[in-house]
Amino acid sequence: MELLDKLNWRYAAKAMNGEPVPEDKIERILEAARLAPTSSGLQPFEILVIKNQEVKEKIRPVAWNQSVITDCSHLLVFAAWDTYTEDRINYMFDLTNEIRGFKNEGWENYRQMLLSSYPQQDSNENFHHAAKQAYIAFSQAIIAAAFEGVDATPLEGFDPDAVDEILGLREKGLRSAVLLPIGYRKEENDWLVNLVKVRKPMEDLVTVID
Amino acid sequence: MELLDKLNWRYAAKAMNGEPVPEDKIERILEAARLAPTSSGLQPFEILVIKNQEVKEKIRPVAWNQSVITDCSHLLVFAAWDTYTEDRINYMFDLTNEIRGFKNEGWENYRQMLLSSYPQQDSNENFHHAAKQAYIAFSQAIIAAAFEGVDATPLEGFDPDAVDEILGLREKGLRSAVLLPIGYRKEENDWLVNLVKVRKPMEDLVTVID
Repeated sequence: MELLDKLNWRYAAKAMNGEPVPEDKIERILEAARLAPTSSGLQPFEILVIKNQEVKEKIRPVAWNQSVITDCSHLLVFAAWDTYTEDRINYMFDLTNEIRGFKNEGWENYRQMLLSSYPQQDSNENFHHAAKQAYIAFSQAIIAAAFEGVDATPLEGFDPDAVDEILGLREKGLRSAVLLPIGYRKEENDWLVNLVKVRKPMEDLVTVID
Repeated sequence: MELLDKLNWRYAAKAMNGEPVPEDKIERILEAARLAPTSSGLQPFEILVIKNQEVKEKIRPVAWNQSVITDCSHLLVFAAWDTYTEDRINYMFDLTNEIRGFKNEGWENYRQMLLSSYPQQDSNENFHHAAKQAYIAFSQAIIAAAFEGVDATPLEGFDPDAVDEILGLREKGLRSAVLLPIGYRKEENDWLVNLVKVRKPMEDLVTVID
């Protein structure tokens, strides 16, 4: 399967060379993220695409000074909703009705069920739930980058509060969940590029109940 | 890009016909999940592959009685570590050293840093962190199913405590995170199959900072 070839090709580049990635490739990577399935279809996250070098320079010190932050072409910040609100839930249900051109009783009952549960839940638990949905899209973006032949470095090593502050995310009801620098590997500076990929053997990962 | 075609083809099948999915397709779907990148390479989750019909019948009532639970071919349960422990962290670092055939001081320092932080953190926060990694693999499995031309239904609508109980997950230090029934759609019973896919427009998802 071609997908497995791409998954074996990709790795988390630890050094990038600053070369720009063409915008059409970025657009397809973002489209893959946009198409990701999410719980109740709410897509409870946004993606900030940072091309501005000064902003990258501000983030690097709060991300363990990792060079890929500044040497990537585009830094994607997956920012999840800080909680679920009535407005946010209604937005997606209204959009669905508008696009499909009809209202459906079952779907409206489902809307009411979400409205009567999600907004009242603990906001930190809601954020974790929203962030998990962001990770589905994040994963699809990682794979899309591999299909485009560009490197992408999944990156959790950063101070989320500091990134929220730099990007003004909290005022928008968002919290940074995970980063994805996209660019081109700089092999001579990358300690990981020539090391073999390590994964648990299948028997330690999977249990079949038959 | 072929990936985008696959992402547009797939949808969350709401009815399946019970036909078995060939084992070689399941193996490639699991291999895609196994290859998923995870934080520090820890792969903090396991996947239960349920083929046993009686076990599926037990899970269906605690999953909003959704028919795909029993009418799928293979029910994948993504179960995340309930917390990070020293043993679990050491397992992955030891495996890495064994596969790569050498020890590295930087890598060993990194191991010590994780050992001195993760196991001491709040176990619920650790579970959420582990579950996010499981979602990366879950997303890769969803895409792999599309490449195999089989349906897969991302499914969060279930009682995790009840599923943990049925599968004996807590005793293994695991907690169910998300389900993925895999099988073949039954179009005549599926209210979703002919509805247009709804996603936020790109301008509501993405903000470019240039």
